Amino acid sequence: MRLKHVKGATEKIMASPYVITDAKKYQGSFKKIFNNENPLHLEIGTGKGSFLIEMARKNPDINFIGVEKYDSVLVRAINKIEEEWIPNLRFISMDANEIESVFCHEIDMIYLNFSDPWPKARHERRRLTSINFLKKYDAIFKADKKIIMKTDNRHLFEYSVISFVDYGYKIKDISLNLYEEDMKDNVPTEYEIKFQTLGFPIYKIEVYR
Amino acid sequence: MRLKHVKGATEKIMASPYVITDAKKYQGSFKKIFNNENPLHLEIGTGKGSFLIEMARKNPDINFIGVEKYDSVLVRAINKIEEEWIPNLRFISMDANEIESVFCHEIDMIYLNFSDPWPKARHERRRLTSINFLKKYDAIFKADKKIIMKTDNRHLFEYSVISFVDYGYKIKDISLNLYEEDMKDNVPTEYEIKFQTLGFPIYKIEVYR
Repeated sequence: MRLKHVKGATEKIMASPYVITDAKKYQGSFKKIFNNENPLHLEIGTGKGSFLIEMARKNPDINFIGVEKYDSVLVRAINKIEEEWIPNLRFISMDANEIESVFCHEIDMIYLNFSDPWPKARHERRRLTSINFLKKYDAIFKADKKIIMKTDNRHLFEYSVISFVDYGYKIKDISLNLYEEDMKDNVPTEYEIKFQTLGFPIYKIEVYR
Repeated sequence: MRLKHVKGATEKIMASPYVITDAKKYQGSFKKIFNNENPLHLEIGTGKGSFLIEMARKNPDINFIGVEKYDSVLVRAINKIEEEWIPNLRFISMDANEIESVFCHEIDMIYLNFSDPWPKARHERRRLTSINFLKKYDAIFKADKKIIMKTDNRHLFEYSVISFVDYGYKIKDISLNLYEEDMKDNVPTEYEIKFQTLGFPIYKIEVYR
């Protein structure tokens, strides 16, 4: 993604009640933030936030945290919701590489939406479905492990299917053209709407262990 | 597939040196037919035969057997090669349901090309990638189990990926748009050429256990 510098983004994010600024302090006890025992779902690379915001609105009995590396993008999510309060939604400004030092056996579901494909072989470790990251997820999942991934990138998807299965995940559901399915429960991302409109197939997989 | 009645098809097949008419007699010892120790590859639902004929021409050190239920289709394969002799190629006129009573721990690879999708749930057992058939394949594979599947049917492909993985297969390779890949080793079927030309994606998966 090409990133524009957004003046004051970091300051705005730090001041938002939606943003957990001292995330490491809550490691293993993020439920304190929500003050309930509801399941905790994590989106890695939450971008401009529309997926997670809509998911949080639709599912008040699930807590949602989105992590995003780029403040210039995350500020767009904050801007969307500053006039309202969605109690089961939070964001963290952080690099996905650090998730093990932020969460500890407390995540029930991970969403990977239109992640960076890192097409070069030498960057494989950076793909969010590489064995490098699948190992990290083991350290943050509570018990049952569930990942839902969507992408328009065919090579990333093919790679991810093999990677999940090699790691021991089973496939609960797979779609190779999401927009030809019954879509009643689908919450699209900004990117998804754009690429689907252009006629590209959207791939989706739900895996569990 | 809509089947035309072809007059004399069964008679022509039975008279062809390419066709094993007393297949059950060779159960466990099909190498006798080829008189060598080369690997034995099986195509289930060989149709008009162009895939297997080309594979046999290209790979003289592998033996190929194609099974096909409909004589009116299989006779088209026979017609293609009656003027030549390809020693590593044979066909059997039979229903795939019977494979366990024809082969016994002697197959090294199975090809499933553009198999009937049997879309209705109540016909699931008829799909060549259902657990029903995966169990049968266990009885005919020699040691290592390898299946290569191609189809243009998205739902059959999605179903098959889940079925393979549930059964314990790992994925060696997967392509969700074969004709966008490096195609140097691809041998197309008649059906594949037709559907690819119409712009539909061709799906391919190679699994092993």
